[in-house]
Amino acid sequence: MSELEATWSAARSGSRAALARLLSWVERGGAGAEAVAALAFPASGQAPTVGVTGAPGAGKSTLVSALLTHWRSTGETVAVLAVDPSSPFSGGAILGDRVRMQDHALDDGVFVRSLASRGELGGLSLAVPEALRVLDAVGFDRLVVETVGVGQVELEVAGTTDTVVVVVTPGWGDAIQANKAGLLEVADVFAVNKADRPGAAETRRDLEAMLDLSGTGSTPTDTHGGADTWRPPVLATVATAGEGIPELAGAIDAHRASLVDSGALERRRAGQLEAEVRRRVVAAVERRLRALGVEDPSLWGRLARRELEVHQLVGLLLDQVAGDGPTARR
Amino acid sequence: MSELEATWSAARSGSRAALARLLSWVERGGAGAEAVAALAFPASGQAPTVGVTGAPGAGKSTLVSALLTHWRSTGETVAVLAVDPSSPFSGGAILGDRVRMQDHALDDGVFVRSLASRGELGGLSLAVPEALRVLDAVGFDRLVVETVGVGQVELEVAGTTDTVVVVVTPGWGDAIQANKAGLLEVADVFAVNKADRPGAAETRRDLEAMLDLSGTGSTPTDTHGGADTWRPPVLATVATAGEGIPELAGAIDAHRASLVDSGALERRRAGQLEAEVRRRVVAAVERRLRALGVEDPSLWGRLARRELEVHQLVGLLLDQVAGDGPTARR
Repeated sequence: MSELEATWSAARSGSRAALARLLSWVERGGAGAEAVAALAFPASGQAPTVGVTGAPGAGKSTLVSALLTHWRSTGETVAVLAVDPSSPFSGGAILGDRVRMQDHALDDGVFVRSLASRGELGGLSLAVPEALRVLDAVGFDRLVVETVGVGQVELEVAGTTDTVVVVVTPGWGDAIQANKAGLLEVADVFAVNKADRPGAAETRRDLEAMLDLSGTGSTPTDTHGGADTWRPPVLATVATAGEGIPELAGAIDAHRASLVDSGALERRRAGQLEAEVRRRVVAAVERRLRALGVEDPSLWGRLARRELEVHQLVGLLLDQVAGDGPTARR
Repeated sequence: MSELEATWSAARSGSRAALARLLSWVERGGAGAEAVAALAFPASGQAPTVGVTGAPGAGKSTLVSALLTHWRSTGETVAVLAVDPSSPFSGGAILGDRVRMQDHALDDGVFVRSLASRGELGGLSLAVPEALRVLDAVGFDRLVVETVGVGQVELEVAGTTDTVVVVVTPGWGDAIQANKAGLLEVADVFAVNKADRPGAAETRRDLEAMLDLSGTGSTPTDTHGGADTWRPPVLATVATAGEGIPELAGAIDAHRASLVDSGALERRRAGQLEAEVRRRVVAAVERRLRALGVEDPSLWGRLARRELEVHQLVGLLLDQVAGDGPTARR
């Protein structure tokens, strides 16, 4: 049995150390990640996935921790991916994880892992779906992706899940104005957290008004298409006290049930997979272009001296970046 | 003689109608654009190019018109590309052109043309350098690219020129804060226009302070590398009265002379060409991926049914998008 097969088998039998190794391979990319993916892909596609996003300070980590407590009380096992595009740290070492883990550290039914970008363009938005498939394949009942902020990468990452929870706080009016296009588009459920603070009712009203303006139901897009009849509910939560958590968990399940009933889940997942494959092809092409530049600088020199015309070179490169890559062209 | 060759020859003999046709082919993309490019590329690379960018309302069009008057007084012929990523109009029909043209409408030494995106991703940032090469090859002494706003596309477009003039107005402090990263990075010359208004001195001082903080000299990047000893001058202009225009024209020439002296011009242009080729390869790959999806939806179906693994499909597509494309694979 190969090292990979042994690790895979151990992870499926419940070894957290083995699972962590698999995820490190995924995070690192390249041939190791592809080998893990080949094992994980056929066995994945079962567990419901939830993305939790929102501005920093909205209490996302506490909310996720409260959801973990809720789901664990029903016996479900849960894996959490914490994603911070701006952080160079990974492997479960960041502070947020430890804080979150305090409540669940002794619980074998919870697994929390940070995923960081290795500096590669689009790296995180490719690593997250891959990591989710591994967590799915080793048998977790439920998967959560938590992002740190609301940037483009975070929205993209949240968009690789079945259900997106957008967390806002009272008095968040300005941010809504600034971000509403992006957030309204990806939200399947709104949680107005810290709802014991002043302004919570107004924030919920603002969100409902925005939903009225945008028409009911999720906006159909490539990765979010189909659930036209679903209107994102706007729920009040106080995560620190566990208030509103059962209702939030209920809304998450209701959204997924509506996706399943309408047949939209299949379309949504197919669209997400298709978008991921397109991103991977483009990323591979960009990687190979960079490698070509290092390998054969004379190409660029001939272009600069105008011995080689722009479109000629484009054709040449298109040919070279394909197949097995520049070094092993058939 | 083919239609293209006849049009090319007429354009080089000074026919503005023929030139307009060439630019329409370039704008439309595809095989027509490539045929024009093959003729233009070897004959291009001579004329100095200037990008003029800045927030809407800064008076860019008036400033460019004043520069045209200045350059024409020295006998130089000038071509202007007006670029508006948000406008669906093109072909010299937009209002801005007519206003600008009033001063130069009867002057055969001036050519103004609007370039619009045909809706294709990255279309403008690919069409602009191609159009500049055509204008260069037909013999204009000087080329100007004027953008409407300061978005990502505009900065990218301005970055395809030798010298970038960033136009700001008095009291623009907030905008500087918001945009300074992007603008400081691309600016070779600052023009504080409408300098007869209150706050002009403060704006100039703010810009100088920002330049102090960022270190003197242009920030070296892929397309802007080399001219490390150049510090962007901050000039006061009143374009409507022609004030400060000779100084601005002088600064543009001084910047280019410094690029030539340091050998940075060659590096900068080579870097720009290289970046353009990379963008073209990626754009071609994305185009072919879209075509493949239409042509062979079963690929995506097999992925969704998990009969085909993600990385297998990526490999398959990488092979198919290369060379002569999906329909004419050798």
